[in-house]
Amino acid sequence: MEIKQYIETNKERFLEELFSLIRIPSISSQAEHKGDMVRCAERWKELILAAGADRAEVMPTDGNPVVYGEKIVDPAAKTVLVYGHYDVMPVDPLELWHTDPFEPVIKDGKIWARGADDDKGQSFMHAKAFETMLQTGNLPCNVQFMLEGEEEIGSGSLAKWIVVNKDLVKADIILVSDTSMIASDVPSITTGLRGLAYWQIEVTGPNADLHSGIFGGSVANPLNTLCEMISKCMDADNHITIPHFYDDVVECSARERELLNMAPYSEEEYKESVGVKALRGEKGYTKIEQVGIRPTFDLCGMWGGYTAEGSKTVLPSKAYAKLSCRLVPNQDHEKIAELVKNYFEENAPDYVDVKVTPMHGGQAYGCPTDHPAYKAAEAAYMDTYGKLAIPMRSGGSIPIISTFEKVLGIKSILMGFGLGEDAIHSPNENYRLDHFYKGIETIIRFYHHYAK
Amino acid sequence: MEIKQYIETNKERFLEELFSLIRIPSISSQAEHKGDMVRCAERWKELILAAGADRAEVMPTDGNPVVYGEKIVDPAAKTVLVYGHYDVMPVDPLELWHTDPFEPVIKDGKIWARGADDDKGQSFMHAKAFETMLQTGNLPCNVQFMLEGEEEIGSGSLAKWIVVNKDLVKADIILVSDTSMIASDVPSITTGLRGLAYWQIEVTGPNADLHSGIFGGSVANPLNTLCEMISKCMDADNHITIPHFYDDVVECSARERELLNMAPYSEEEYKESVGVKALRGEKGYTKIEQVGIRPTFDLCGMWGGYTAEGSKTVLPSKAYAKLSCRLVPNQDHEKIAELVKNYFEENAPDYVDVKVTPMHGGQAYGCPTDHPAYKAAEAAYMDTYGKLAIPMRSGGSIPIISTFEKVLGIKSILMGFGLGEDAIHSPNENYRLDHFYKGIETIIRFYHHYAK
Repeated sequence: MEIKQYIETNKERFLEELFSLIRIPSISSQAEHKGDMVRCAERWKELILAAGADRAEVMPTDGNPVVYGEKIVDPAAKTVLVYGHYDVMPVDPLELWHTDPFEPVIKDGKIWARGADDDKGQSFMHAKAFETMLQTGNLPCNVQFMLEGEEEIGSGSLAKWIVVNKDLVKADIILVSDTSMIASDVPSITTGLRGLAYWQIEVTGPNADLHSGIFGGSVANPLNTLCEMISKCMDADNHITIPHFYDDVVECSARERELLNMAPYSEEEYKESVGVKALRGEKGYTKIEQVGIRPTFDLCGMWGGYTAEGSKTVLPSKAYAKLSCRLVPNQDHEKIAELVKNYFEENAPDYVDVKVTPMHGGQAYGCPTDHPAYKAAEAAYMDTYGKLAIPMRSGGSIPIISTFEKVLGIKSILMGFGLGEDAIHSPNENYRLDHFYKGIETIIRFYHHYAK
Repeated sequence: MEIKQYIETNKERFLEELFSLIRIPSISSQAEHKGDMVRCAERWKELILAAGADRAEVMPTDGNPVVYGEKIVDPAAKTVLVYGHYDVMPVDPLELWHTDPFEPVIKDGKIWARGADDDKGQSFMHAKAFETMLQTGNLPCNVQFMLEGEEEIGSGSLAKWIVVNKDLVKADIILVSDTSMIASDVPSITTGLRGLAYWQIEVTGPNADLHSGIFGGSVANPLNTLCEMISKCMDADNHITIPHFYDDVVECSARERELLNMAPYSEEEYKESVGVKALRGEKGYTKIEQVGIRPTFDLCGMWGGYTAEGSKTVLPSKAYAKLSCRLVPNQDHEKIAELVKNYFEENAPDYVDVKVTPMHGGQAYGCPTDHPAYKAAEAAYMDTYGKLAIPMRSGGSIPIISTFEKVLGIKSILMGFGLGEDAIHSPNENYRLDHFYKGIETIIRFYHHYAK
């Protein structure tokens, strides 16, 4: 097969090109790397052009530039938009690295460097898949590239860029490799990301801290009251009891739940990994479902009164909490933010004042497993791995993915080839070479199934 | 009447003697006043002897000395033990004082100085009442004096002293002026002080802070759990629901409750003073009863997770609370400390670890209103004020009073002549001259009613 041969013949060059991206320390959160961001974007542009794109440009934003490139093979064909990011996380603590984070080293079948996986290694597979298809006369779709330099700091500039360049990025599907698979021999596709709503709650009782002897028993304690308000939001089955909270939640199909639960999972290992004797979660859902397809109600912080060493008797004036809800597809974070704010404020007992301030939020994302692009991805994994890829719902959030859907109206397919052990965001980040090459193959297969 | 005449004749001298005590800056919490503590104790000894005591001594302790004095008129007569303290609170912020805190000034019918009320002014009334009775041939009881120098820092040395000197202080009743009356024209006697139990609660969920997206929904949140545990301890009527919590509470008689509620009380003024729109307290009890005769369950502090500015999504590992209960007569603070500790630890859900550490505690104190000494005090106030003194239950605690009862087996009568506006512990402390002289009269009347 000429595709495999092309990859085999060019595999060293593919790596050298990837290394040229990795060697640029494009840390988006550190101002001193501003110049590196531009250098990295320029290098991406060169590599896209070299791979065979019709055009590629480094497009300025208020922050770091967006790299855009495209190859239109047939205006009537489907268009795939590749999304990735060229920025990386900081490298401290540097002393824990075994090698220079910005000088990639190959050892034990892995590339060791910052960005080896997240996301230079993963996104560069798409450039090489594109080149391979083009050079072997096998590119069945139009391709667009969109690489940002602020994924690790919130994707602020890209969110604005896509609004302005809405007409430029007309595609049928967005293809992303920025997630992990369950295990090297357990292929999986991320089909959902949870959204988030976050609030600060301030409960005021008396207008000053009071003597708990003189006033205790007749004046409401805002800490006790906040505890009671929080505890009323969840029932004995760990369902959230705030009216209308679940109204927009779309239940997963029985088939998708069945597939989700095919992921290997050991409750004993899970409990051991977090150091608890027992788990707690919503009744009627498996552990995988509880973190993947169900919303949560968690205090991220709480404080009030005397919190230093020893004892001080005081009836505090104030109690505070930071509350967050992970959300699931079709729950609108702004609607939930209002709903919870109103619930707390309207149900505040008359003996306290309750003020709720919505903080940041983000939409959940879900891709149905019967979507044609999902089916194409599933078939591609079957070709490469000989196994059914398991749909995975990540409990975390990648806000820009839901922004793509909202602004551009395009679904994303999250074909991640990373592994949990790749140490992304940590010292000694690494990416397996076999995953890099198998990823390129699987991506090419996706195009062919999707083009049908 | 010769008693009134004696007081009138000697009133200036009484004040000069009090001022000699006030001029000694006996601040127990500041090490540089160590010498002043001894000077003040020595001065008290001189004044007790000058008033006519058979003996008086400054008795060393590990801390500040105790002044002990006595006059035995008839071994068969009742013995009254006068308790007071010669130490005072610090004076900062000094710039808020209108006059030198240790140079007493008389203005607007009041003595202005640190200790004018608390407790030099109030305790010295007893010395002058004693002198007046003795000099006019009207002393019907034996008298003992016991003055400590550590009341403002916890009475640690006196608590040990009474154990060692148990046989010395054999008395029938302890008489104390170190509290306030409701108003200048509303005489009252403090019949109860609440006790205290205090705990720190530590709830541990996962062994480290977790990503609230990856784990939220399947791992218990220790802050949510602590809120739930706290909220289960009180029902909708604000009764404490911990089993056996109220077992030892002795209900007040209907008559005492009737008398307690004769105290002037304006709910509107009370709410305004603490800045709340509504009050909260145990059903079935008035506001006066809620703070006076009922135990409480109040968080003094709570903390855990992310508490700084902004938002951080985290599923915290730990949640902490500082919990206190005010207790009422017959509740043993050590028993309650164990009861609550066991309740929390035994009812901890299996998905968290709960550790409860009892911290300090103190017994409640109560004097029944049908006690002969209470009746004598009531009659004395009736003579002086022409009004029934209202029994008052203070919500706060004076731990040494319950220690007296426990160690010596003697009840205390709390005949306080201070006023809420006397600014004890604050700048510009003051004490009304008419309260000083009326106090001396009322104390003398107490002896005569009590001797009967």
